[in-house]
Amino acid sequence: MITGKNLIAGSWEQTVQSSIFHTVNPKTNQALPTAFQEATSDQIDTAVAAAEVSFETYASTSFEERATFLQTIQEELQSHQQFILETYQEESALPEGRAQGEFQRTLAQIQRFIELLQKGSLAEIKIHTQGPDLRKMNYPIGPIAVFGASNFPLAFSTAGGDTISALAAGCPVVVKAHPFHAGTSELVADCIAKALVKCNLPQGIFSHLGGQSHKIGSLLVSHPKIKGVGFTGSFSGGKALYDLAQKRKEPIPVFAEMGSINPIFIFENKLKTDFSLAETLAQSVTMGTGQFCTNPGLIVVCDPSGTHDLAAEISQHTSELSLPPMAHDSIQKKFDLQIDELKSEGKLKSVYSSGNCSAVVGSIDAKEFIKNKKLSEEVFGPFTLVVNCLSVSQMLEVAMALEGQLTATLLGEKEDNRDLKMLLSKLQSKVGRILFEGVPTGVAVTEAMQHGGPFPASTDSRFTSVGTDAIYRWLRPVAFQDCPNELLPDALKNENPLGILRNVDGNLTTAAL
Amino acid sequence: MITGKNLIAGSWEQTVQSSIFHTVNPKTNQALPTAFQEATSDQIDTAVAAAEVSFETYASTSFEERATFLQTIQEELQSHQQFILETYQEESALPEGRAQGEFQRTLAQIQRFIELLQKGSLAEIKIHTQGPDLRKMNYPIGPIAVFGASNFPLAFSTAGGDTISALAAGCPVVVKAHPFHAGTSELVADCIAKALVKCNLPQGIFSHLGGQSHKIGSLLVSHPKIKGVGFTGSFSGGKALYDLAQKRKEPIPVFAEMGSINPIFIFENKLKTDFSLAETLAQSVTMGTGQFCTNPGLIVVCDPSGTHDLAAEISQHTSELSLPPMAHDSIQKKFDLQIDELKSEGKLKSVYSSGNCSAVVGSIDAKEFIKNKKLSEEVFGPFTLVVNCLSVSQMLEVAMALEGQLTATLLGEKEDNRDLKMLLSKLQSKVGRILFEGVPTGVAVTEAMQHGGPFPASTDSRFTSVGTDAIYRWLRPVAFQDCPNELLPDALKNENPLGILRNVDGNLTTAAL
Repeated sequence: MITGKNLIAGSWEQTVQSSIFHTVNPKTNQALPTAFQEATSDQIDTAVAAAEVSFETYASTSFEERATFLQTIQEELQSHQQFILETYQEESALPEGRAQGEFQRTLAQIQRFIELLQKGSLAEIKIHTQGPDLRKMNYPIGPIAVFGASNFPLAFSTAGGDTISALAAGCPVVVKAHPFHAGTSELVADCIAKALVKCNLPQGIFSHLGGQSHKIGSLLVSHPKIKGVGFTGSFSGGKALYDLAQKRKEPIPVFAEMGSINPIFIFENKLKTDFSLAETLAQSVTMGTGQFCTNPGLIVVCDPSGTHDLAAEISQHTSELSLPPMAHDSIQKKFDLQIDELKSEGKLKSVYSSGNCSAVVGSIDAKEFIKNKKLSEEVFGPFTLVVNCLSVSQMLEVAMALEGQLTATLLGEKEDNRDLKMLLSKLQSKVGRILFEGVPTGVAVTEAMQHGGPFPASTDSRFTSVGTDAIYRWLRPVAFQDCPNELLPDALKNENPLGILRNVDGNLTTAAL
Repeated sequence: MITGKNLIAGSWEQTVQSSIFHTVNPKTNQALPTAFQEATSDQIDTAVAAAEVSFETYASTSFEERATFLQTIQEELQSHQQFILETYQEESALPEGRAQGEFQRTLAQIQRFIELLQKGSLAEIKIHTQGPDLRKMNYPIGPIAVFGASNFPLAFSTAGGDTISALAAGCPVVVKAHPFHAGTSELVADCIAKALVKCNLPQGIFSHLGGQSHKIGSLLVSHPKIKGVGFTGSFSGGKALYDLAQKRKEPIPVFAEMGSINPIFIFENKLKTDFSLAETLAQSVTMGTGQFCTNPGLIVVCDPSGTHDLAAEISQHTSELSLPPMAHDSIQKKFDLQIDELKSEGKLKSVYSSGNCSAVVGSIDAKEFIKNKKLSEEVFGPFTLVVNCLSVSQMLEVAMALEGQLTATLLGEKEDNRDLKMLLSKLQSKVGRILFEGVPTGVAVTEAMQHGGPFPASTDSRFTSVGTDAIYRWLRPVAFQDCPNELLPDALKNENPLGILRNVDGNLTTAAL
């Protein structure tokens, strides 16, 4: 049963005073039955205080204990899978395949962090025995606030990458659930709470707050006992939280992944020879009804002869698709408004709407695009803008006019290598991940992934929010100097009882000292 | 000859309009002859623009080329050593031994980064070949502004750790020299400029700006083309730059190491058995006339019988010392003012001034200390406050009342291990480096060093400003997906031409793919 209550350090609390809200089935636009309670300031305070109290204990748990905890979360999720997936589909209107896929991805993400804990490499141990005996390892930074994302009710929400990476790091987590899928989030939160009990860990390690009001997030981020923030969403939302966090007496890191237009650059040779290009692009642009952070919102194409109308071709393919509704009526309205604005400005060369599907494809000449900064703002949804260039050097100009991006995709042939290199060299300082095949949608959860780019794509390009390296957002090094062996954390002890690979005087070794 | 000019991308520029200032010999309080020109807004702009223009070229230099550049800087410094040291001593009034020591330390720091470049580990390569081919490596973040520190004219200034780590990372640097040692800085800057010419690198990679006015630093940090900031100094200075950087349209990371009171906790057994304790502490408190970031400003002592007057003992030893003057009259004045305030508040139990030496030692009971937040603020200079505790639990209370610190030192005997563990567990979340022997002054430049603690000790506790890991402040990961081998940076190529240790599918190897 979904209760609509808030989880405060282990207890699902009923409040009388709080405002309520409902989730909506985007297919029918009908409110679903559960009345969800907005978390009160007192509840926020209690949740954060409990997180802080539990921090010392949780930070000192072994990697093994944390791995067991994450495994138990996986088990709990699996045993509640059916109800979670039903709720997911009701609240998101996303098809069963997507629900299943995202559920499996969420489990797989947790698995990656279990493996990381088993390996112990997150400690990043450096030992220097000459001169003073110095031994450095990572230590969790403290209680973390995580914001659920609207577009991924599982993989970027309550038990998503932010929460799991923070828990793996040894940080207690207070989640602010996204109101669009409050029911799904509650069910997932209950799995984490049950896992805490089963693992005999303090309940303060995890709390789950609901609400529609921005006030809840503001109170959470401003709370002096919160030491870091994870967020995936819009630029305005992420930047507002970032600014709040910087104005605190003690500023704290905010990892806001704020989306991007993920340009795809297509060279002439590719355009001429890849006949499935338009179809591939149409699929990427409409994937998840355009609600992916890596959605390609900009397609820069080199067509010196001016004979291709790639926008029309893409649109032809999107017309054949039937897309599920967007996650919420309000997202659809914002999308429609942005498209109307684009049309009314009359800057675009052409705008193709795709019949019964909501996808829109625009096209514009490079010169016009470069002049108008507004055209490089993200339109969140199934939209892409094709920018027609007459030369490679015009493509370079477009690349240089862009702000920071999560991804850029460079599609050329072997003959284009010299030009690709030039473009690559411009883009490297603007982008987190550069692809040379395929499309940017689809983000592999591996240790080699980088999901985060220079501002405004994210607030700290030195970290990733996807893949196991996401854990380093929540860790900081502590050095022990001339510490007696018996007082050292196990990971740093002479005998290396955890058998971790350690950097000792510059050499990586699992040997004892 | 010292010219007093500013170095703008390779040329020592004479300006007519600029205000001038002089450095002062702290021994005599007499101005030295050179008239130093304040950098103008135009010069700042030109310097940063040149840094940005040179970025793409410099970022693509090989590790070997950068290592050669750093070696050439070392050589230039060595061949100008005599004049640099003379100027250093004139401007700082520090003794020759300290000048020599700091010069050697500066060379040794550079050497550590040369070795790091030779090893290539700064790239932190992660390759994942299953699924999409993903290869991630670090890439420099862009032009960096570095602020020279007042207390280390060489090791934390123009060719100090911030500049050298940024140059090693592949970032151009614009230095704002500290006005107290503008001459020393100019000579060092000239060495870097000469090294750029010898290595045939773009001159825009390094510029050097002088000035007394805060405006120069503000313009530099606010400049949209600056992508990161390194600073060592006061809380007010560091926090002001941090706030400026966060208010930019594009916020940028500021690594401000803002000092700390570096508490030393002394257990009863240590107090009773270590008869050289007072002398050791007196030396640490007065080292560099108290102007070290790791100066122990707080000594928390467990003395249940209340029979020890450690403050008096320390003071007796400081009385025997003769200290060089502080780096500048203004620092001395601020120190005197803070001491006067402490005395006049009447909160301290006793205050020992040390005769002809400027050192001051206060003492207070733990209860009083915990009540008065003001007493845990840093007094920059040769001062320490002894806090007398009646029990270990009172020591714990003092520990819990403290803010973030660069270091904490725990001095106990084997019998204290249980209590030490408890204290350690409280301090771990507040401190960057924890010592169990000796004193916190003296910071080894190794890969295991952590110099940076939770706020307000520094603005980002996840990074260090001393040791080779300081380089990671200026790097961010970029992932290449399905990139043709010939387009990959050498470090990521299949054949591993650089022979770097790489993480391939979770295993560290130098083998080719």
